[in-house]
Amino acid sequence: MNAPHELQSRLVSRPLPGAMLQALRERFGARCSSAAAVREQHGRDESPFPTTPPEVVVYCESTDDVVAVLRLADANAVPVIPYGVGTSLEGHLLAVQGGVSLDLSRMSAVVQLNPEDLTVTVQAGVTREQLNQEIRDQGLFFPIDPGANATLGGMAATRASGTNAVRYGTMRENVLGLTVVTAAGELIRTGTRARKSSAGYDLTRLFVGSEGTLGVMTEVTLKLYPLPEAVSAAICHFADIDAAVRATIQVIQMGVPIARCELLDVNAVRAVNAQSRLGLREAPMLLMEFHGSDASVKEQAETVQAITSEAGGEDFQWASTPEERTRLWTARHKAYFAGMQLNPGCRTVTTDTCVPISRLAEIIKLSVADADASGLPYYIVGHVGDGNFHLAYLVQEGDAEQRALAEAMSLQMVQRAIALEGTCSGEHGIGLHKMGFLVDEAGAGTVALMRSIKHALDPKNIMNPGKIFDW
Amino acid sequence: MNAPHELQSRLVSRPLPGAMLQALRERFGARCSSAAAVREQHGRDESPFPTTPPEVVVYCESTDDVVAVLRLADANAVPVIPYGVGTSLEGHLLAVQGGVSLDLSRMSAVVQLNPEDLTVTVQAGVTREQLNQEIRDQGLFFPIDPGANATLGGMAATRASGTNAVRYGTMRENVLGLTVVTAAGELIRTGTRARKSSAGYDLTRLFVGSEGTLGVMTEVTLKLYPLPEAVSAAICHFADIDAAVRATIQVIQMGVPIARCELLDVNAVRAVNAQSRLGLREAPMLLMEFHGSDASVKEQAETVQAITSEAGGEDFQWASTPEERTRLWTARHKAYFAGMQLNPGCRTVTTDTCVPISRLAEIIKLSVADADASGLPYYIVGHVGDGNFHLAYLVQEGDAEQRALAEAMSLQMVQRAIALEGTCSGEHGIGLHKMGFLVDEAGAGTVALMRSIKHALDPKNIMNPGKIFDW
Repeated sequence: MNAPHELQSRLVSRPLPGAMLQALRERFGARCSSAAAVREQHGRDESPFPTTPPEVVVYCESTDDVVAVLRLADANAVPVIPYGVGTSLEGHLLAVQGGVSLDLSRMSAVVQLNPEDLTVTVQAGVTREQLNQEIRDQGLFFPIDPGANATLGGMAATRASGTNAVRYGTMRENVLGLTVVTAAGELIRTGTRARKSSAGYDLTRLFVGSEGTLGVMTEVTLKLYPLPEAVSAAICHFADIDAAVRATIQVIQMGVPIARCELLDVNAVRAVNAQSRLGLREAPMLLMEFHGSDASVKEQAETVQAITSEAGGEDFQWASTPEERTRLWTARHKAYFAGMQLNPGCRTVTTDTCVPISRLAEIIKLSVADADASGLPYYIVGHVGDGNFHLAYLVQEGDAEQRALAEAMSLQMVQRAIALEGTCSGEHGIGLHKMGFLVDEAGAGTVALMRSIKHALDPKNIMNPGKIFDW
Repeated sequence: MNAPHELQSRLVSRPLPGAMLQALRERFGARCSSAAAVREQHGRDESPFPTTPPEVVVYCESTDDVVAVLRLADANAVPVIPYGVGTSLEGHLLAVQGGVSLDLSRMSAVVQLNPEDLTVTVQAGVTREQLNQEIRDQGLFFPIDPGANATLGGMAATRASGTNAVRYGTMRENVLGLTVVTAAGELIRTGTRARKSSAGYDLTRLFVGSEGTLGVMTEVTLKLYPLPEAVSAAICHFADIDAAVRATIQVIQMGVPIARCELLDVNAVRAVNAQSRLGLREAPMLLMEFHGSDASVKEQAETVQAITSEAGGEDFQWASTPEERTRLWTARHKAYFAGMQLNPGCRTVTTDTCVPISRLAEIIKLSVADADASGLPYYIVGHVGDGNFHLAYLVQEGDAEQRALAEAMSLQMVQRAIALEGTCSGEHGIGLHKMGFLVDEAGAGTVALMRSIKHALDPKNIMNPGKIFDW
């Protein structure tokens, strides 16, 4: 089900009528491109799937632009794939039914910042790093940080999270409202700037995580947080992964409000050492961060130090200057690319299971045993405070056997996660890659209910068709 | 739009076929009742609407029972209204199209408690107090606490929150998964026990807040929290409401992780004094609670004391023994009934607006001026840390003029909240009462999208028909 050759069977020809292309060119001029290089760039993501380009790419600069494209697409029953900066991991952006790639990266304005309410509204193409740069001098930050510098529209679409989710939640908890262009080209708004609401169906959270299959989010209203008074980071090494995970479980069960709690296995440590010259001891480690007042940060760190030490942790070390912290976290965020650089010519097959915290040690142990036995290079990074981790298998591009081996291990891990009452995807989404897993996890009846919502909101199946579940 | 006489125009006759009644009686025996007293009890809630009884009440004891009723209802296109303990406030439970009231209060088992993962799965009829009693000796608690001792199914259905939401979020953030019986009588599950997931559409949050209009939630999986190491409560009086609200705004903007921050106006203080003999000074007050380690609680309280004192707060007083705290919070939770007891023969028209925190002082000030000018008795209690407050107008039962006056002020307040980028309902839901408000707030296009979901999931309009929006 998850082998790459399956992509062929999912391809559907839905040609874009010449009159529509003409209309797009008239309205968008140079912002409408059929150049091969542009189409190819928009027909792939960071997944190992082969490039599957759209027929045309349209660069939108406003919600009105999006409405114009959607009206044409609706009238012509042509697929539309919203595109941010192309960092998704599960094949979300592949134009398996052709159509228009709707590039929103130029919609990069901060629309309304309300520091006094800790809210901001941004256009969908604003990236998380840009946002944090623009709000920093107000003493604010937005915590959700997938490794890549993704757009906030893309992060909302995949219900992204990252290293801070253990304390601040995911995009699910941090999107207050949306401006959406529906499949019929109508403009609607969901939510308000109020922190909570019981007013009707929670459409905000229906669109968050819908992976572009229900409409196009053009503006996103987000919760912000005051920059903590004090921040400190610490690392701690362990003899084996199991000990590191057991320490994490205890930290969470104690209710320590830790802001970040990341696991790197020895392979990940080697990769970031090689790329960023960190000189870290090559052993499994936890990379942690504490936010709060001076006293609270000190107290949290002392509690965690006691727990890790009891669990066999060694070399508990502080990184209290901002420079040291930035260096460590930048290295962590680059682990994905660091891993690939260690293995030139490789693509990455990444797992994304998330389980109840007490089951984490078990699933990691079994998965590591499989990976070791397979002989494939791999590394593990994990948002272990959430019960979420990524095992990345590195496979030679074009090596079908390696790819199949990695996919088989990934499948097995997902089955384990489901048996342990967890999920096949903590934060990357379903895309093309995990469509089969979603049925295994949620059941056919639940997926049928999702499908009936899709049919109701997008009766012509134009919004990112062929993703999440079959039509 | 919101006057009580409007109820008449919403009544629709959908008779329950004799054969279906027969089938219900055969399966449920004494658990199927058409007695007038039972029907009347199930045809009202805490709203001021007149009782509108269902044709029959069925007491379910299992998910299978619910499936059986839904299959019959689907086959006969008969309305079904899920019922917990009847504490909703917006007319949710009125059988405006007749049909079956599905009483879930006997589904009161804790199905699966996983203290090591901080999760629990309960049947929908478990109340919040029962849950907290059953998990306390594990060192855990569930924070969401609407005033009433509601069922967790009912709380999920209205996306309830309460006094702890400022720190712990609402039902939106704290439901991990659901067992749902669909309108067609099919059993599905949403979510998992993992803390986060990107696996497909967020059906969990679609059902949370859907007020029984999309299906019946029979089991709810919830996040739990370790009981804080230290808890302390404090009260502080202010010369006027404005000063109290300004202090609150600053506490939130500073990022103090306050666990509860409740406003009582002088009328609310008088009511709880009269009911619970608290001897509180009769002035507007904040009732606050701090959770954390000893050091962190002390630090939070010191910061808040400094802020309130600068804002003109007086008499900052501690309630550090559990008994004192319980007494204060019990009084706060009983404010609704205390208010009614001060005014025998009254019904309450309660507002529920929630605005961005910086707009809170403004909307309260204007609303208080209106209420003072109206001559109607009223009181205010507010989850002001969230920007949410309730102004309760007390109207003589059956006095159409008073009722109309209260509804007109409520309408005006909602229009203000919407203009201030807030919501008509922070936590009570839409029900019958706020259907017009929802359109004003969300817009016709957004409500049409909600309606298309309803049509897709409940094509015969049998699930709590006539609520939230028109068919």
